[in-house]
Amino acid sequence: MPRQVTAFSNSTVKLLRSLRDKKARRSEGLFLAEGLRILTEARDSGMLPEIVAFSPEGARHPLAAEIIAATEAAGGDAIETTADILSKMSGKDNPQMLLGAYRQPATSLDRIDRSKAPLWIVAQALRDPGNIGTVLRTGDAAGAGGLILIDDCADPFSVEAVRASMGALFTQAIATAKWVEFVSWLRGNDGQLVGTSLKATQDYLAAKYDRPCFLLIGNEQQGLPADYEAECDLLVKIPMAGRADSLNAAMATAVMAFAIKASWR
Amino acid sequence: MPRQVTAFSNSTVKLLRSLRDKKARRSEGLFLAEGLRILTEARDSGMLPEIVAFSPEGARHPLAAEIIAATEAAGGDAIETTADILSKMSGKDNPQMLLGAYRQPATSLDRIDRSKAPLWIVAQALRDPGNIGTVLRTGDAAGAGGLILIDDCADPFSVEAVRASMGALFTQAIATAKWVEFVSWLRGNDGQLVGTSLKATQDYLAAKYDRPCFLLIGNEQQGLPADYEAECDLLVKIPMAGRADSLNAAMATAVMAFAIKASWR
Repeated sequence: MPRQVTAFSNSTVKLLRSLRDKKARRSEGLFLAEGLRILTEARDSGMLPEIVAFSPEGARHPLAAEIIAATEAAGGDAIETTADILSKMSGKDNPQMLLGAYRQPATSLDRIDRSKAPLWIVAQALRDPGNIGTVLRTGDAAGAGGLILIDDCADPFSVEAVRASMGALFTQAIATAKWVEFVSWLRGNDGQLVGTSLKATQDYLAAKYDRPCFLLIGNEQQGLPADYEAECDLLVKIPMAGRADSLNAAMATAVMAFAIKASWR
Repeated sequence: MPRQVTAFSNSTVKLLRSLRDKKARRSEGLFLAEGLRILTEARDSGMLPEIVAFSPEGARHPLAAEIIAATEAAGGDAIETTADILSKMSGKDNPQMLLGAYRQPATSLDRIDRSKAPLWIVAQALRDPGNIGTVLRTGDAAGAGGLILIDDCADPFSVEAVRASMGALFTQAIATAKWVEFVSWLRGNDGQLVGTSLKATQDYLAAKYDRPCFLLIGNEQQGLPADYEAECDLLVKIPMAGRADSLNAAMATAVMAFAIKASWR
């Protein structure tokens, strides 16, 4: 049976609240996901929270009740609490009425099985957690196997990234690596590294994409460093019509990922 | 010559600060844009601020000095101020050292000349100001003429939208209209209304897009209402590979806009 918890000073409440902070996520090895839609996505991907917190209202939906029961059956902790406390946990005025703390998966490169998907997204120094989540969601929609984070990226397990991913965090494999590690791993097997560059001459719609394809996207402000571009097997250009700036990093990823997918039809 | 202003109580400082608030933007008819890149984009598009504020550091760049001089030459107000005050105006801890208050353009539909571009983006109840800005930026990159905002959208002149647009706010025409007004205007002349729907059977890559094409995108949560879909001349589907949710509204716009552009090559 779920415990009833109504005190802000309760240690589980404190733990869940702390997960909005990166250091606490690291030391606890947990991260927070909110809302019935995302928690259902997690369960459909075979993952249950270690702790689930909910309001009486949040437990009313049959899917929520299932997740709460399954969490307890798997030895997890279930706490029924107030909207006020859920609000403090999520940092939102109108919190979701159901949230879960999940175990962070290992993110070493050797956990990536490149034969499992034709497309993988590789992001370099992507700083905005919302962009990380959006890229995960785009990768999921485009049939990518996962996201490899290079250099100093935002934390994919932050509340903002999980929220923007709309559950894709649970369907996409995630790895973090230094650039040299990644290149060494990449070259140990088949794989085409594709970058986009305004300097490229090859049009993105005319290029030939191999499988597995590793789509490399650069930092929001600077784009890809020159030596990263030089490592690419293929550099393509998305022709821009506009007078203002180019596409943002997440948009360019979406346009490229769907163009690559379309080229394989 | 620019005025030196160092008091938070100064009326111009107060006016600029107030522009982060929608009501003040409405009543003053002004909006705020920040940073050399965006202010230069505005000038290149023929627009100067009515008020420009900057730190001594911000005025040092030759392009910034040009914009400040041009603003004064056009009868505008230029104030040199402190980083602290710029921070209060922009609401950011690390503010841009140059910002401008611009006159809001009229946003009635009759200001849209559909013959000027092959593609127009129509957003229904897009609630996130960052999405509005991102869609503007995407439209600019894809060669759209502008953005038509239907029903209750976020304010395209909010600081967040202007920031995310990266200057595209100044290159894209903007209109706001009720759905019935828009349909009546649309049907008064040539134009294909295209919607995306998970229920559509027509593949987005196999469809025939006419010019001018009006790409209709729905609200972030609900998508398009059924009667809006029914009004479309063409409903297409972007096939999704993923187990999680579909593309987000801004991503779907980017994928669609570039697919439409590509179909015309």
